[in-house]
Amino acid sequence: MGNAGVTHRRILEQGMALMSQAGLEGVTLGVLAEQVGISKSGLFAHFRSKQEVQIELLEHMMQFTNARVVVPAMRAEKGLPRLHALIANWFGWAQRAGLPGGCPVAAGLFEFDDVEGAVRNKILEMESAWRRLLTQLVREAIECGHLAKDLDLDQFVWELCGIYLGHHAAHRFLRSADADRRARTAFEALVKRAMPVADKKKRGRKIVKPASHPRASRAKAARRPRATSR
Amino acid sequence: MGNAGVTHRRILEQGMALMSQAGLEGVTLGVLAEQVGISKSGLFAHFRSKQEVQIELLEHMMQFTNARVVVPAMRAEKGLPRLHALIANWFGWAQRAGLPGGCPVAAGLFEFDDVEGAVRNKILEMESAWRRLLTQLVREAIECGHLAKDLDLDQFVWELCGIYLGHHAAHRFLRSADADRRARTAFEALVKRAMPVADKKKRGRKIVKPASHPRASRAKAARRPRATSR
Repeated sequence: MGNAGVTHRRILEQGMALMSQAGLEGVTLGVLAEQVGISKSGLFAHFRSKQEVQIELLEHMMQFTNARVVVPAMRAEKGLPRLHALIANWFGWAQRAGLPGGCPVAAGLFEFDDVEGAVRNKILEMESAWRRLLTQLVREAIECGHLAKDLDLDQFVWELCGIYLGHHAAHRFLRSADADRRARTAFEALVKRAMPVADKKKRGRKIVKPASHPRASRAKAARRPRATSR
Repeated sequence: MGNAGVTHRRILEQGMALMSQAGLEGVTLGVLAEQVGISKSGLFAHFRSKQEVQIELLEHMMQFTNARVVVPAMRAEKGLPRLHALIANWFGWAQRAGLPGGCPVAAGLFEFDDVEGAVRNKILEMESAWRRLLTQLVREAIECGHLAKDLDLDQFVWELCGIYLGHHAAHRFLRSADADRRARTAFEALVKRAMPVADKKKRGRKIVKPASHPRASRAKAARRPRATSR
């Protein structure tokens, strides 16, 4: 990687933290240049506009979450275990990734609801892709017989995304100590409701508990070659 | 009301729309002065700082939602009917109130998660008061025997707030046509889970359907004289 590449990467990394704390609109070229320690004209050599920075930051973030949240979860067994692994990696991912201000896309859903343009379109594309991924994993759980055949897939994903936003608000804004536990209980109830009728009692306790601490499950997973969880 | 009072009120009303669309941080004195059609120094006669405008706007909004969302719901019968009435008035209130950009507090939960200061404190105070009100109504529903005695009240309210945020994102950001229906289904499931075991099957269909149109329930409620407020 040349010097330009190194600087470009450094800008994106600094920008990720800024985006997480100040929101996408808080990523101004002036503040970003200051944080990276280059001149504003130096920054212009890499990005022509604030919007270009915002979109590249979102794309950078997407690669990042793909590597840290999605790929490890995909190694878990198909069906509910894989869905649980994804949820365990997803909730609180920003904090574990060292992004001090929480998930930029969650914030973007509220920041860019009325702001038309390329940034909103990028967030919409990312949010839609994310919901499609969740839908796919829920569909696989149905195919595996872990969830009921007549489950309303879209409703399940809709409610799951609500739990994520509720967790984000409780954890980040209210700073509640019990946000993780509340989210887990909500998710367990959602899964229980979605189970095949005959399985609800039998499986309720066994399957629905996601890894309570993602790092713990990661360490455990590392011991198995074909691991579950991240 | 003197001229100054009229102008002050006009500033708050214009500011409400601006806050709803551009977010709290988007309420700058310059833009607000332009929208109201007065000079920036004219605006300074009413508010000494951006922060003072933001806080007065939030207080103005609180009075507004109290009158339009809470008071009418309190006329409904105690217990689940009152909770349903509040939910029906709450979800989508901003749009019905002519606030084009959605609920400023919901947006504030994501905008001000990392921004310390008086505005964050005001949002925290409002969000906490709102959750206390929801808790009170759920507690009344338990006392009336509509919900189970051993219900985890805080969990119920936590999940309800998640459904609200999910609805806000689906309705405002994704612009989904089915956001209202999805939120209603989620809320019905939450209520069903919270019912006394013996009542779940019997009552499931009858009680859990909230008034599909809030104006209808408000009109009906208006006929009864004994109102409480928030």
